[in-house]
Amino acid sequence: MSAAAGSVGSVDSVGVALVGAGRMGAFHAETLARRLRGAHLVAVADPAPGAAERLVDRLGTGRPCTDLAELWAAPDIDAVVIATPARTHADLVVAASRAGKGVFCEKPMAVTLPDADRAIDAARRAGVALQVGFNRRFAADWRAARALLDDGTLGVPRLLRSLTRDPGGFDPARVLPGTIFLETLIHDFDTLRFLNPGAEAVEVSATAGALVEPDWADRGLLDTAVVTVRFGNGAIAVAEATFEAAYGYDVRGEVLASGGMATMGDGRRSGLTFSGAAGRLVETVRGDQELFTDAYTAELAAFVEAVRAGSAPPVTGEDARAALAIALAAAESVRAGRPVRLEEVEK
Amino acid sequence: MSAAAGSVGSVDSVGVALVGAGRMGAFHAETLARRLRGAHLVAVADPAPGAAERLVDRLGTGRPCTDLAELWAAPDIDAVVIATPARTHADLVVAASRAGKGVFCEKPMAVTLPDADRAIDAARRAGVALQVGFNRRFAADWRAARALLDDGTLGVPRLLRSLTRDPGGFDPARVLPGTIFLETLIHDFDTLRFLNPGAEAVEVSATAGALVEPDWADRGLLDTAVVTVRFGNGAIAVAEATFEAAYGYDVRGEVLASGGMATMGDGRRSGLTFSGAAGRLVETVRGDQELFTDAYTAELAAFVEAVRAGSAPPVTGEDARAALAIALAAAESVRAGRPVRLEEVEK
Amino acid sequence: MSAAAGSVGSVDSVGVALVGAGRMGAFHAETLARRLRGAHLVAVADPAPGAAERLVDRLGTGRPCTDLAELWAAPDIDAVVIATPARTHADLVVAASRAGKGVFCEKPMAVTLPDADRAIDAARRAGVALQVGFNRRFAADWRAARALLDDGTLGVPRLLRSLTRDPGGFDPARVLPGTIFLETLIHDFDTLRFLNPGAEAVEVSATAGALVEPDWADRGLLDTAVVTVRFGNGAIAVAEATFEAAYGYDVRGEVLASGGMATMGDGRRSGLTFSGAAGRLVETVRGDQELFTDAYTAELAAFVEAVRAGSAPPVTGEDARAALAIALAAAESVRAGRPVRLEEVEK
Amino acid sequence: MSAAAGSVGSVDSVGVALVGAGRMGAFHAETLARRLRGAHLVAVADPAPGAAERLVDRLGTGRPCTDLAELWAAPDIDAVVIATPARTHADLVVAASRAGKGVFCEKPMAVTLPDADRAIDAARRAGVALQVGFNRRFAADWRAARALLDDGTLGVPRLLRSLTRDPGGFDPARVLPGTIFLETLIHDFDTLRFLNPGAEAVEVSATAGALVEPDWADRGLLDTAVVTVRFGNGAIAVAEATFEAAYGYDVRGEVLASGGMATMGDGRRSGLTFSGAAGRLVETVRGDQELFTDAYTAELAAFVEAVRAGSAPPVTGEDARAALAIALAAAESVRAGRPVRLEEVEK
Repeated sequence: MSAAAGSVGSVDSVGVALVGAGRMGAFHAETLARRLRGAHLVAVADPAPGAAERLVDRLGTGRPCTDLAELWAAPDIDAVVIATPARTHADLVVAASRAGKGVFCEKPMAVTLPDADRAIDAARRAGVALQVGFNRRFAADWRAARALLDDGTLGVPRLLRSLTRDPGGFDPARVLPGTIFLETLIHDFDTLRFLNPGAEAVEVSATAGALVEPDWADRGLLDTAVVTVRFGNGAIAVAEATFEAAYGYDVRGEVLASGGMATMGDGRRSGLTFSGAAGRLVETVRGDQELFTDAYTAELAAFVEAVRAGSAPPVTGEDARAALAIALAAAESVRAGRPVRLEEVEK
Repeated sequence: MSAAAGSVGSVDSVGVALVGAGRMGAFHAETLARRLRGAHLVAVADPAPGAAERLVDRLGTGRPCTDLAELWAAPDIDAVVIATPARTHADLVVAASRAGKGVFCEKPMAVTLPDADRAIDAARRAGVALQVGFNRRFAADWRAARALLDDGTLGVPRLLRSLTRDPGGFDPARVLPGTIFLETLIHDFDTLRFLNPGAEAVEVSATAGALVEPDWADRGLLDTAVVTVRFGNGAIAVAEATFEAAYGYDVRGEVLASGGMATMGDGRRSGLTFSGAAGRLVETVRGDQELFTDAYTAELAAFVEAVRAGSAPPVTGEDARAALAIALAAAESVRAGRPVRLEEVEK
Repeated sequence: MSAAAGSVGSVDSVGVALVGAGRMGAFHAETLARRLRGAHLVAVADPAPGAAERLVDRLGTGRPCTDLAELWAAPDIDAVVIATPARTHADLVVAASRAGKGVFCEKPMAVTLPDADRAIDAARRAGVALQVGFNRRFAADWRAARALLDDGTLGVPRLLRSLTRDPGGFDPARVLPGTIFLETLIHDFDTLRFLNPGAEAVEVSATAGALVEPDWADRGLLDTAVVTVRFGNGAIAVAEATFEAAYGYDVRGEVLASGGMATMGDGRRSGLTFSGAAGRLVETVRGDQELFTDAYTAELAAFVEAVRAGSAPPVTGEDARAALAIALAAAESVRAGRPVRLEEVEK
Repeated sequence: MSAAAGSVGSVDSVGVALVGAGRMGAFHAETLARRLRGAHLVAVADPAPGAAERLVDRLGTGRPCTDLAELWAAPDIDAVVIATPARTHADLVVAASRAGKGVFCEKPMAVTLPDADRAIDAARRAGVALQVGFNRRFAADWRAARALLDDGTLGVPRLLRSLTRDPGGFDPARVLPGTIFLETLIHDFDTLRFLNPGAEAVEVSATAGALVEPDWADRGLLDTAVVTVRFGNGAIAVAEATFEAAYGYDVRGEVLASGGMATMGDGRRSGLTFSGAAGRLVETVRGDQELFTDAYTAELAAFVEAVRAGSAPPVTGEDARAALAIALAAAESVRAGRPVRLEEVEK
């Protein structure tokens, strides 16, 4: 058996480093190591003792790294994937950009608008690709819905819906007051923008609570939220999230437009149905990595291609900022108990 | 950007050569080049002038090869994928086996039972892995149905159905009298065996015609067939094929068993639905390579793993032979206008 | 509250008598008493002591009757619904026709072709409406499929499927050797003719067994059957029946034609889905009277209208005869172990 | 043929008069004349010249009536169905109650809370049955969902959704500023209460616009609305309506609860699917009377039974009042641009 196997002809491969070897980071590393051609995993960095080593060992590729300065300096690293806790994102985007690395940053790219601006600015100045992890834009259903908008089939959007329902069971220590908006619904806010092309949010009205974990309420944590977003073109959108879906991981979208309706997300694990004494049963998807394997892979493929080609990535820092603004307005709407205009959070 | 990218750590990669650069061969080559880690495309052989060169150029990997003896002798080739016309399969399996290469052979592995026996025997003597391209065993719905059989949920199979409907438009020059049985329904015959584990076909009764292309009838070609297969455990199965599906490429399965029913194959291109003036519309799958991308990839992954590990492949030459026997009995049933017992084709 | 309620304006109502107060007869009586305007239940006859009385009491309308001669003579009876055991049907059709009553006869209208001819002849001579209980022709899905055939959308039928799966649990004492063909699959044979308009069956090939109740085999009873029917226009159809559907009562149809495919019968009890820990669950229909409430009502409405208007009923004695011929050919095919041409059963 | 047909045995039939022979009134009259046993249509009243006559002629039953005093005095009228414009409902409920007639009133029962209180009070004092036309409570999907709540399968509701999408094409002259809340969403508000048993709305936040018909905006008319309702048990509900559904008449519901999710309303016209060149197509329901034929019939059957038995009707004046309060709060929320608590509209 030939050991030099991987030298895949003459095609250049993008060297990628991972920063943050947690659940999502590990998945991206696997994608780089196993599911994606045209890129390879060079290094993994994580502050937790042994985390980078364990991931590198498991994947059989890449080197662990404890000093980020090493990453920034390494000539075999063309780009980085940032999958650390949200509050560290903006600084890492800035550092990686300054080092001239292409940057793929998990959502949210920042947790304040000034931070988002800093990140965008750094990437722009450095001329590096900056892409944010809004993977639903790469999922088949959502792409197809957007195509129906782009080709005019759907017409003008009127009512939109995007929801994220997680089986939950989160460690409360890892949940923060803004988590449901900044970490979960941020996907839906981006999706709503993606499905209402050219329009921007004008006003946000949110209702939320700690319904699943009543003791969260005392700590200001939220596990259930409904957010109404009014867009500049008049369209009204609803984003909805919960951390308690007994039936699995449920992500859906819906656009009612002048020409009809598109619905996305059927929640089925496969095309199998089983009909038995209880009726007809379809297995449901249980987790995001199962549901979005292809989308997570496609977003990295698009990023790698942007790095390689020096072209613009398909989801930008500006997209991340716009979704963040909606999330901040939603949080403020819950706090203030009234609709919040986007211009209020810009101040 | 690092050019040595592909030397993916220390993992050994299986060197694979493709024999036959047609439609299906090209797809397998792409899988080896782009979708699969752990293997790499070393060479491509095809008798058509320039065919191997064009594929190698397009994929940017592997070397074209005109002399099969070269393939058998090449030390960097661990295994071959055979995707040539059916009548050449058995000889190629024998030759590759004798050269000590692992063999992945497209269906049908042979077109006569003695040829099938020769192929099986050669691989066994050489101790090489021999796997046949019954990809449905690797498709999610079918695997899940089999799991319901294996864990007892479905109980004892009573009635089975497997169908293949192709959009057609075939070049009549490439269709032979036995094509619908040996090339198309052979998948369904294997599927029915897969979904009725442990049982074997006892008798076959087939009805067929040239309904779509009436002038085919004069040449003995068939474009529509229904085959009833009675199994040793009493289960009755229907396999059905047509070369005229106006709505795309349709592959489905159904098992009615004592504990309920499993259905496989929902024909949807994605989870998107569009509701418009005409009603609710779901895009349908249009071709086998779209429908079975994952299954085609998974079967090669399993083969590569078997070659690498020296373990038994999951679909054997014996499986290919058993499906072939049903196909031959079906063809004979149409010719004779009566049910044909499997033992009749064994003579 | 007004007691003269029912004198529904000036509209004449058709007086109907029921012969046979069993499961299906009782359902038809209920339809006449409660679900249908334009007809009323006048009398119920049943040889079982007390059966007619009990049904009349429960419905609060009609008179019990023990002497059929009374029915034939009664001037307030315009039509009869025959829901007795199959072997008595033909004689009852003849008697009712001679008495000048319109006749709605449950399937099968007869169990031999000569009997079918006698029944058809009697109704024709008497000039009375004779309709047979092929209710699927009145079910929404099937009507809609036929409409797609009639308006040319589907094009020319190539492959058809019709199936009946019953939860079973039958009293073996009520099952006869021909039951699965004459009582169950007769529906499917009619459906296949309905969905292949203008074509007639040419040859039948059947495979059957006692898979569910192995001890039935000794008594020549069958609980599972697959019947392939070749039609004069080349179309190939499969009818399938079983007396063991763990998930309820399942009736489906499928037409693959040159213009596409129609599928009928989704088996859902309602549009509700429940997604829980086990996945997504849809309740399935559990019995024929639940599945076909509307169709059973619509067929009686059509019959009543034919009686009232003196017009031809929508399902004729000739339809019943044609389905019977297929059933007899199927039974003979199982007996003889070979395909049987329709002309053979005509002898 | 017997003319005295309708005197259906000894069962008493409830004499019903219709007030308001418009689209919905005519449907209810048809139900009484044709789809329902146990009741009969005695009279039809409508102020439009000839309207009552035309309906009576078409149905062949009942007498036209121009003077309501006649209705109230008629001894053969046990109950009335009120299907006049909304603003007249409360007075008619009061008058009919005082006349001792059972009252079935289309939604909304009143357009102000004091009017609702008058209507409830009149019926209570007179001891007559008062039922309101919230037909979804009688639709199979919704009943089944409620059953899953009642038997504990669903658990505690967290997030609810109810929507009404109408193909529109309304005569603007018949649309009033409150129409979308009082006439359309009132169904959804009742549905949300029905699906969150025992809980009451606490706060309402609405966003609305004239997106479909921009010139409606000047007249204060709304054609698109999203209403978030917070319930006392913490559950958050979204009601949504639009007068522009290009694909037909779409009514759906969804309950996410601690034990799982129920979804209602699949929008299919039948179980037929057609797969053709464009993909797989399912016909969608086009109007409320098609979608809710059974539910409209079932609600009248329940009403008739309540009148007959002197029992409490299943949807009460109090239910109508509670839905009205939510509708008024939603209208006020749009006007004021902020969430409105239910107690505000009670003042």
